[in-house]
Amino acid sequence: MSPVNKFPFMPRALSQLIESFRLLPGIGPKTAQKLAFSTLKMSSEQVKDISNSLANIKSEIIYCQYCQNISENSICNICTDNNRDNSIICVVEEVMDVYVLEKSGAFKGKFHVLHGSISPANGIGPDEIRIKELVNRVQSDSLIKEIVIATNLNLEGEATAMYINQIFSKSEHKIKITRLARGLPSGSDIEYADETTILHAMGSRVNIDESL
Amino acid sequence: MSPVNKFPFMPRALSQLIESFRLLPGIGPKTAQKLAFSTLKMSSEQVKDISNSLANIKSEIIYCQYCQNISENSICNICTDNNRDNSIICVVEEVMDVYVLEKSGAFKGKFHVLHGSISPANGIGPDEIRIKELVNRVQSDSLIKEIVIATNLNLEGEATAMYINQIFSKSEHKIKITRLARGLPSGSDIEYADETTILHAMGSRVNIDESL
Repeated sequence: MSPVNKFPFMPRALSQLIESFRLLPGIGPKTAQKLAFSTLKMSSEQVKDISNSLANIKSEIIYCQYCQNISENSICNICTDNNRDNSIICVVEEVMDVYVLEKSGAFKGKFHVLHGSISPANGIGPDEIRIKELVNRVQSDSLIKEIVIATNLNLEGEATAMYINQIFSKSEHKIKITRLARGLPSGSDIEYADETTILHAMGSRVNIDESL
Repeated sequence: MSPVNKFPFMPRALSQLIESFRLLPGIGPKTAQKLAFSTLKMSSEQVKDISNSLANIKSEIIYCQYCQNISENSICNICTDNNRDNSIICVVEEVMDVYVLEKSGAFKGKFHVLHGSISPANGIGPDEIRIKELVNRVQSDSLIKEIVIATNLNLEGEATAMYINQIFSKSEHKIKITRLARGLPSGSDIEYADETTILHAMGSRVNIDESL
């Protein structure tokens, strides 16, 4: 049932805004209503700001032809940055992951964004995500020596990691394939750790001098 | 710190959209980021829908000259509805309250929206909310016989109810002033009810035949 039916006396512009907010993921009917009503209390300039930002997002953002990350130009700022290591590529599922890794400061190489993960249950095979682009990139760029796979640690992410590893193990251009280490997250309680995490943390245990 | 500083490689349109979403109440930096990134996965039409709805909200909505509720015309659909009781006005703080009361189906009179409540702590006196409009309306419309005050049950709502009652008790045009009943909410556990609620529920206890 749409809010239009629920509230026959609501101005059309308001019920339309509620419907529109519901298009955003994670925004349910109650939140959409709250957000729509709150715009009535905001200044016209503020509402215009949000409207304009949304209008621009699709037109101003394209995908980098090398790494498939979002970009304002055909080649993104990370790919054109000469201070970064060209020999190592970190493969992530989503654009957001690039920013999370960037924020950590842990990686100074280049990225490759797959825009999804292999998920047979949802009908997403290797051709639906940007693996082809990764293979072409690695084959045409002899500088690349290592791929760090940083897909999510769930069924889809694991399947994707496995698939990429298989492709490159068959390829003529031999490169090193690595993955992010698995173990206990910082600040976590062992009491609440799941079995698989414990298994990985134990299996990959390191000399205490190296871990501090 | 703005996301622009946090993520130097983020396209300007995206960081601007994150900043824009943060203008909405209850949207923190993490949610704003999540929402902004999600628009990248939406179709251009969907994003345009949201943008247009926002662009329209301020231009298409005005306030009803009688009840101060939001409206598409100078007199709202509730005020022009001849099937409603003209003798009773329900006074609420916010536009949202009108829709909540409408949805309940419990009230078939007219409304008056104050657009706030008296709050000396926040510098909001009786002149900052639409009490004047209520007084003028009641004085010029002899059909009005009762005002049901439905302000919130907090300090500001109580102060507002008290103020309105005082004004009309001094007025020449004698009308009945009522308030929504206080008591235990439906489906609630007595175990978790606060003392004030219990006090009201006990004080206003009704014959069991009337309550079922």
